[in-house]
Amino acid sequence: MSNVLTYLITARRCEVEELQRLSRTCQMVLTVGQLIHCLQQERGLSNLYLGSGGQRDAAARQARVANSQAAAAEFQDWLHSIEQDNALSNGARLYTRIAFALHALEGLPRLREEISALRCSPTESYERFKTVVGALLALVFEAADVAVDAQISRLLVALFNLMQGKEFAGRERAAGAAAFATGKITREQEQSIEYQIEMQEQALRRFESFAEDVRAPWQALQAGLPLAELERLRRKLLTSHERGLDAEMADAWYQCCSARIDGLHQIEIHLAQFVQARCQAKITELQQELDDQDQLFSQQDRLDPLTPLAGFSAPLDEQALADGVGSHLAHSIVDMLRSQSERLQNLTAELATVRDSLEERKLIERAKGVLMMKQGLNEEAAYRLLRKHAMNQNRRIAEVAQAILSLTEILPEA
Amino acid sequence: MSNVLTYLITARRCEVEELQRLSRTCQMVLTVGQLIHCLQQERGLSNLYLGSGGQRDAAARQARVANSQAAAAEFQDWLHSIEQDNALSNGARLYTRIAFALHALEGLPRLREEISALRCSPTESYERFKTVVGALLALVFEAADVAVDAQISRLLVALFNLMQGKEFAGRERAAGAAAFATGKITREQEQSIEYQIEMQEQALRRFESFAEDVRAPWQALQAGLPLAELERLRRKLLTSHERGLDAEMADAWYQCCSARIDGLHQIEIHLAQFVQARCQAKITELQQELDDQDQLFSQQDRLDPLTPLAGFSAPLDEQALADGVGSHLAHSIVDMLRSQSERLQNLTAELATVRDSLEERKLIERAKGVLMMKQGLNEEAAYRLLRKHAMNQNRRIAEVAQAILSLTEILPEA
Repeated sequence: MSNVLTYLITARRCEVEELQRLSRTCQMVLTVGQLIHCLQQERGLSNLYLGSGGQRDAAARQARVANSQAAAAEFQDWLHSIEQDNALSNGARLYTRIAFALHALEGLPRLREEISALRCSPTESYERFKTVVGALLALVFEAADVAVDAQISRLLVALFNLMQGKEFAGRERAAGAAAFATGKITREQEQSIEYQIEMQEQALRRFESFAEDVRAPWQALQAGLPLAELERLRRKLLTSHERGLDAEMADAWYQCCSARIDGLHQIEIHLAQFVQARCQAKITELQQELDDQDQLFSQQDRLDPLTPLAGFSAPLDEQALADGVGSHLAHSIVDMLRSQSERLQNLTAELATVRDSLEERKLIERAKGVLMMKQGLNEEAAYRLLRKHAMNQNRRIAEVAQAILSLTEILPEA
Repeated sequence: MSNVLTYLITARRCEVEELQRLSRTCQMVLTVGQLIHCLQQERGLSNLYLGSGGQRDAAARQARVANSQAAAAEFQDWLHSIEQDNALSNGARLYTRIAFALHALEGLPRLREEISALRCSPTESYERFKTVVGALLALVFEAADVAVDAQISRLLVALFNLMQGKEFAGRERAAGAAAFATGKITREQEQSIEYQIEMQEQALRRFESFAEDVRAPWQALQAGLPLAELERLRRKLLTSHERGLDAEMADAWYQCCSARIDGLHQIEIHLAQFVQARCQAKITELQQELDDQDQLFSQQDRLDPLTPLAGFSAPLDEQALADGVGSHLAHSIVDMLRSQSERLQNLTAELATVRDSLEERKLIERAKGVLMMKQGLNEEAAYRLLRKHAMNQNRRIAEVAQAILSLTEILPEA
């Protein structure tokens, strides 16, 4: 019997450790979120600067660069605060993503030189910032893909989708800033911006579907945002055709987009802190149960607990409670087994949903990658192709993505 | 740069640790598989013994009891060989399952007494052994639900389905043994056996779909099995209706079923050892890569590697290789990032499939449980209901299960 208790207690201890790893991961997500936010601002202002041929926002851009560098330093500090290998859940994949992210960040100094010297087009700057932010988002994505507690996993998936939606909003801001600042927009830029808008709406819908716990602040934010103004500027941006754009609107555009993006950033911080609080609460709760169990454990040598549960061949067999001789210990163990198994079951059911939404993201991303490589399409075109197939065949985009991946080898090269 | 390398190496080290945990888990699966095999034999002979009112197989049964006890002791030894909490992947859930299993095993001594004294019906003995084996299989199930390497995960899922199919075969053997030994079979027993047959066919189909790596031994086994004889005995068993059964056939039935079940056990051992070998091979391989990286790592202080990769803002950006100044280190790092990311991606895609099949098992099991509880059905009836709904609505059983679980609260009580 002591055996059963020992392993129940070990199981709880593992859960606590898993939660501690998760709460470390939340700190990372907060730090990375801050860094992403700074890079998004730097990207936007770099495009105002480049789009205006260096005429505007040079100082503001330099200030953003300094912010980004400070945020990157904080990320490095967080990394150094992690010692042992098993300090993080999902170690192998998370550390790989960290290596990617650091590798991407190392490209920034040269990119910044090229921007300062106007040796780089807005589009190129945009693309290279996009890759860095993408590498950082991939880190958050891995962090979200841990199965320790259903509610926490839902929150992490909500957080990831929020940050992804925010990045699409950031790309829209940067692309629009470049267009307004240069005073013109190409058809391809229009399509790219339409794509960023559709993607951010999708990501934010996914965020909403997982974010019951932050609905109130989310709705409050929505109410406060200059959405009508944003839509008005979007219309000007996307319907100018060959008529050209009013460069004077560049600031209005940047301000309006930023108001929204900063709002999303607040929600993001709020949500990440909520997850961390949830971890801490669960840790305390489990710790409490562990202490109770240790007491139980110390009792049971005196109690000779074998008798009450011996007739009990089935875990959670109701019979056991009936002929359970009412020993306090016997009942506590049955209760513990029951509560533990209920927790496992709920986890399972919930996680199936949560995981699916993550797996679908991965499938669609990879299928887009395959199409971009094999057919030489850009991201928007690859996605439009996926969506077109899905509509024609009346299947979900993830299904089409799955099909494409299974055909990768035989897909024709463009 | 040293940073990037450090985290790539840490990632590999995490992978190695994960594989070491997995290879420990494989030892557990082997031990548990042996214990299950003994309990299945004991269950079958206990039913021959009980069915014949203690007239037959008393000695043989005692021998099986001894085997089961020895196997249980080995399982305990394995448990004691595991010290630290993070010695196993999926700790919280695995240790909970271990507690369940131990708890179930503790019921056996009393069950055996009752059987020896004929104070227990074949059906009751059957049900109570079923719960113990079920608790042990749940352990294998958790072990299979780890995501470290796609091929290994597929093999573990194959192994779990094989062991599950073998258990359904074991139940069929025990139920049939009781029926032959008593010389009669009720309609309900017939239905139960038909259910065990259908379930084992399903589980073995799933096994086959994941078990490319053991196809050859599997086909060799199939060829050698007395399947015609088995089908002949099944026919006699299931078409006797009220005419009664020839008690003399009890041994033939037990022998025939056992030949098949022992064969499945051999494949199970073969597969578990194959998985373990695969783990070891992968560990060696990664270890080798790690050593190479350590050399690389020691070089790079001399090399000042920043230059070659500095212009490289995108992970896996082909550009980087172009202007990569051809430094050995730069290239190695790009290669490492690439191979690492490919490994992660394949893992993702593969695991999506593997996991789905696990999640579906869980969903169907839980939905059956809900129906049994709410509608007071037995397992077979619950499954038939699920299947009927699936057929009528032309949906997959897992979808119906999902729907039922989402309605649990509002389902009518029987």
